Amino acid sequence: MRRATPDLLERTRVMVEPALVEAVGRLSSSLAVPVRYHFGWIDAAGIPVPNPRQGKGIRPTLALLSAEAVGAEAEVALPGALAVEIVHNFSLVHDDIIDDDPERRHRATVWKAFGAGDAIIAGDAMMVLGLELLLDRPTPPRVAAAADLAGASASMIAGQHMDMSFHRSQAVDVDLCWEMVSLKTGALLAHASAVGAILAGAPDQTVRRLRSFGLELGRGFQAIDDLLGIWGDPSVTGKPAGNDLRERKKSIPVAVALASGSRAGERLADLYSREWLDDDRIEAAAALVEEAGGREATVSAARDCMRRAADALRGADIDAQVAAELEDLAAFVVDRDF
Amino acid sequence: MRRATPDLLERTRVMVEPALVEAVGRLSSSLAVPVRYHFGWIDAAGIPVPNPRQGKGIRPTLALLSAEAVGAEAEVALPGALAVEIVHNFSLVHDDIIDDDPERRHRATVWKAFGAGDAIIAGDAMMVLGLELLLDRPTPPRVAAAADLAGASASMIAGQHMDMSFHRSQAVDVDLCWEMVSLKTGALLAHASAVGAILAGAPDQTVRRLRSFGLELGRGFQAIDDLLGIWGDPSVTGKPAGNDLRERKKSIPVAVALASGSRAGERLADLYSREWLDDDRIEAAAALVEEAGGREATVSAARDCMRRAADALRGADIDAQVAAELEDLAAFVVDRDF
Repeated sequence: MRRATPDLLERTRVMVEPALVEAVGRLSSSLAVPVRYHFGWIDAAGIPVPNPRQGKGIRPTLALLSAEAVGAEAEVALPGALAVEIVHNFSLVHDDIIDDDPERRHRATVWKAFGAGDAIIAGDAMMVLGLELLLDRPTPPRVAAAADLAGASASMIAGQHMDMSFHRSQAVDVDLCWEMVSLKTGALLAHASAVGAILAGAPDQTVRRLRSFGLELGRGFQAIDDLLGIWGDPSVTGKPAGNDLRERKKSIPVAVALASGSRAGERLADLYSREWLDDDRIEAAAALVEEAGGREATVSAARDCMRRAADALRGADIDAQVAAELEDLAAFVVDRDF
Repeated sequence: MRRATPDLLERTRVMVEPALVEAVGRLSSSLAVPVRYHFGWIDAAGIPVPNPRQGKGIRPTLALLSAEAVGAEAEVALPGALAVEIVHNFSLVHDDIIDDDPERRHRATVWKAFGAGDAIIAGDAMMVLGLELLLDRPTPPRVAAAADLAGASASMIAGQHMDMSFHRSQAVDVDLCWEMVSLKTGALLAHASAVGAILAGAPDQTVRRLRSFGLELGRGFQAIDDLLGIWGDPSVTGKPAGNDLRERKKSIPVAVALASGSRAGERLADLYSREWLDDDRIEAAAALVEEAGGREATVSAARDCMRRAADALRGADIDAQVAAELEDLAAFVVDRDF
């Protein structure tokens, strides 16, 4: 029977969280504090938080499903699920410093609560911990998973740097923007969607198909995330309205609008060249992105990604029920309000 | 014939540098810029530097010698030599941000030249690249080397965090200070001193002995580095005189002085509690550390470390000539001006 996405996310929480708590416990006690804080388990004073508001656990859920997709038990994927969740969170901790973001999940980011130094070193520790979890008992599938994670992390880091370089340039080529998204968001979701199959020793071709699914999911997810960065409800996103525009991000809808050659695109470029955008100008910029076709093109691109993600699964030699569950999960991730 | 340390360092440069250039070339072109800058190959504008002033290459030299110590060719250690050098440099790039250090090797640090964001992400990329170099072709010895490097990196990161926590506390227990040093400096030098033997498939007991040698070398090295941080010649250290005192570091000589129970120790604690130390006060603080016995105790502790390092080698089943060369290298590293 096809399992509902919320139930699968809840199963992940139950399976992964105790192991995550244990893994973080391997860090030195002082280093574990900012990491526990980031995961929402304690407040900045070290007091346990009763009902922490956490990430959805998309990546570990993908990892568990990708083991089941090739006929293995979900447990086989557990070290991979843990590792990818930790590495993903390493990237959030560092990105929040780099992007100067003061809030995540409705609370102060690690650098805001503990200082940039602690946030840098906590992120470093998480990155290494993720790889250590796979290298601890280095069976060939675990080593393959570790190498895949290292490669995905390298891509993610390159993507983040590309994103940063976009901030410095006036306009950004739309294709380059998608390449950045594939690296920054796609690579780690591709790994998450394949690591269970890698740990289960599945054939390369199946692993590749699952990886393609995750890559397209990541691209679709980022497209929607970019839309939410402009039109998202602050009470849902946990970030101020129009946040990406305030930071003059060259997100996909903005890149499309800037490259549109339209009058609205030119006016947007003019707004983006200013030192500071007040709330009225942010609203005006959002309207210009929409007028220049940035919103529509991004929604449509996200749909294309989802179609390609589904195609990747259909071509794979995997369990049909799990394939349907992976598609449901992808829809859940990407469909948020758009 | 026993080879001289400067010749061995030069051999490392010739062997490792082309491979290092190639490894850094695997990074995306924009990400490679701050990394190449850090290694001294280019200036901040991207122009090649003709005779770069570089690190001495102690860690890769240890790696190469540790392969020869167990009867293998130095080349066997090359991926380990590269990886440890890259990971060491990752830690320098991040530590410079955390410690707010504007200069290293007589030029601007990466964060100073490119901004903290680029320095964070360049460091992240280096950390992952180091591990990738070993996981690329995952033979069992390479996997063992990667796992050892990940463990050493985790220790190094924990040590750096411990060091940071010392800044926030008034006094620091001397034993705790040594524990910090063992983690922050010792762990990666221990890895460097063993990784060639690991890659050569040497027995565990030999690997353990070489690791002990490297750990003691690291402790001795840090003790001397702490002395140089107070009394070092700025034209040699590349840092302002008394820099560690200005930053009120709880280095080993300072921890010894603060714990001495002497009048000089009390006066030092008083100076350390001030907001800002001008040059006169830094000079006074240095004199107080010496008066309280911090300098002598640290010199003597460094000598003890060197003796234990030599003992570790004597107990190991390794080539006698290479053992002598390792001891020479240790003396070269530790003996700087003290």
